[in-house]
Amino acid sequence: MTEGIEAAAKPATITAAVLIIGDEILSGRTKDRNGGYIAEYLTAIGIDLREVRVVPDVEDEIVDAVNALRARYTYVFTTGGIGPTHDDITADAIARAFGVSIDEDPRAIAMLLEYIRPEDMNAARRRMARIPAGARLVVNPISKAPGFWIGNVIVMAGIPAIMQVMLDNVAPQLATGVPMMSRTVRAACREGDVAADLATIAANHGTVSIGSYPFMENGQYGTHLVLRSRDAQALEAAHNEVIALVARMTLAAG
Amino acid sequence: MTEGIEAAAKPATITAAVLIIGDEILSGRTKDRNGGYIAEYLTAIGIDLREVRVVPDVEDEIVDAVNALRARYTYVFTTGGIGPTHDDITADAIARAFGVSIDEDPRAIAMLLEYIRPEDMNAARRRMARIPAGARLVVNPISKAPGFWIGNVIVMAGIPAIMQVMLDNVAPQLATGVPMMSRTVRAACREGDVAADLATIAANHGTVSIGSYPFMENGQYGTHLVLRSRDAQALEAAHNEVIALVARMTLAAG
Repeated sequence: MTEGIEAAAKPATITAAVLIIGDEILSGRTKDRNGGYIAEYLTAIGIDLREVRVVPDVEDEIVDAVNALRARYTYVFTTGGIGPTHDDITADAIARAFGVSIDEDPRAIAMLLEYIRPEDMNAARRRMARIPAGARLVVNPISKAPGFWIGNVIVMAGIPAIMQVMLDNVAPQLATGVPMMSRTVRAACREGDVAADLATIAANHGTVSIGSYPFMENGQYGTHLVLRSRDAQALEAAHNEVIALVARMTLAAG
Repeated sequence: MTEGIEAAAKPATITAAVLIIGDEILSGRTKDRNGGYIAEYLTAIGIDLREVRVVPDVEDEIVDAVNALRARYTYVFTTGGIGPTHDDITADAIARAFGVSIDEDPRAIAMLLEYIRPEDMNAARRRMARIPAGARLVVNPISKAPGFWIGNVIVMAGIPAIMQVMLDNVAPQLATGVPMMSRTVRAACREGDVAADLATIAANHGTVSIGSYPFMENGQYGTHLVLRSRDAQALEAAHNEVIALVARMTLAAG
């Protein structure tokens, strides 16, 4: 064993925010599915999603949100607004947020030409090749128009299938922390029946976060108790206490 | 006709933000449905949803988001964090955001007792009756634990069925603007084929916002062109131009 080649310790937490850009989400016409997908994906690879924002197709709003979020979190993932139409203004807004120029990128034009016949290339489609100076491209195997990655901001499409392959593409290059582990206990009782004991268990295991999510099934109330931690030993200890609590409740009810 | 009894003109725009509170949304365990529901609901009654944020069950985060949003928009609607367990901290965070005290509200206790047997009332359940000073209660016909309305902030449950009845309950008391009208044209072509003409139509009708939403169906690309405006005449004029544009595209393709 050589001391010099110990595995580098994972950083405790890598954080992220998601910025969803689009009038159609705020009008309710389109129901966002990207936020929930990215949340689950990041949790699985050990990145803590800390905030989600939805803003309209308004440049000032996008610039302000990007600058607020990129200063606060390890990564910011944006979705939407990188298509060919006049309401697709994300790339320009990101360039302005970073104070860099933006221009047609020959690498992006080459990608578009894998998909678009030269005779169909027009000014609108060329807009999809506008990339802020210094950004890396994020490939899009589906419709070729790329996303990009500048600083700690990763800009992706709004169409879920395309966003998902873009995320697959960038994920191996992301720094990740120790993944959060979780245990779920299903309790056939109401939240208010277990709340006091649950608070005690939570207080006794500071590294375990315990959430309680009521549901109704066939006219009966129940509660999912969800324990989350990066500390396997603390998680198991708290999990055992919650199982014992639910068993006591069930006996009491029986 | 008496000049004094003219109908009061509706204000041009009433704005809103939604603040979704809950670790379970950010971990991806629960997929939020409240944001999209409220978006569609507010659009229909003439309130412009301008921003959505999702924050964790962390008091400082909730306080900061509430204060940022309530200063900017006519209304802020929050969902989540008003149950009986230790992670339900929304009411306390709202009281702190407004700088008011919070205590058990006898009106809320009376509501809870319509649903909870006196022998089942415990300290955890009493927490659901903690209401910031000066707030009006928002009734919950399902499980009785009320939401509340303080200043321009309306605090609702996270469980969709309960949030929805709470919103029905407050809606008649909200100020509303002229409702947004919309027209959708389905085009059997790709966004990039219509983008330039669409930008011209959008530029010629400043009061109409035009969005373009690509889709794929049976291996064929298509685009939904959505026009939105509060001005019926401008909307119809732009709509007719978009219909003519799509007809030209179809002829060209045929």
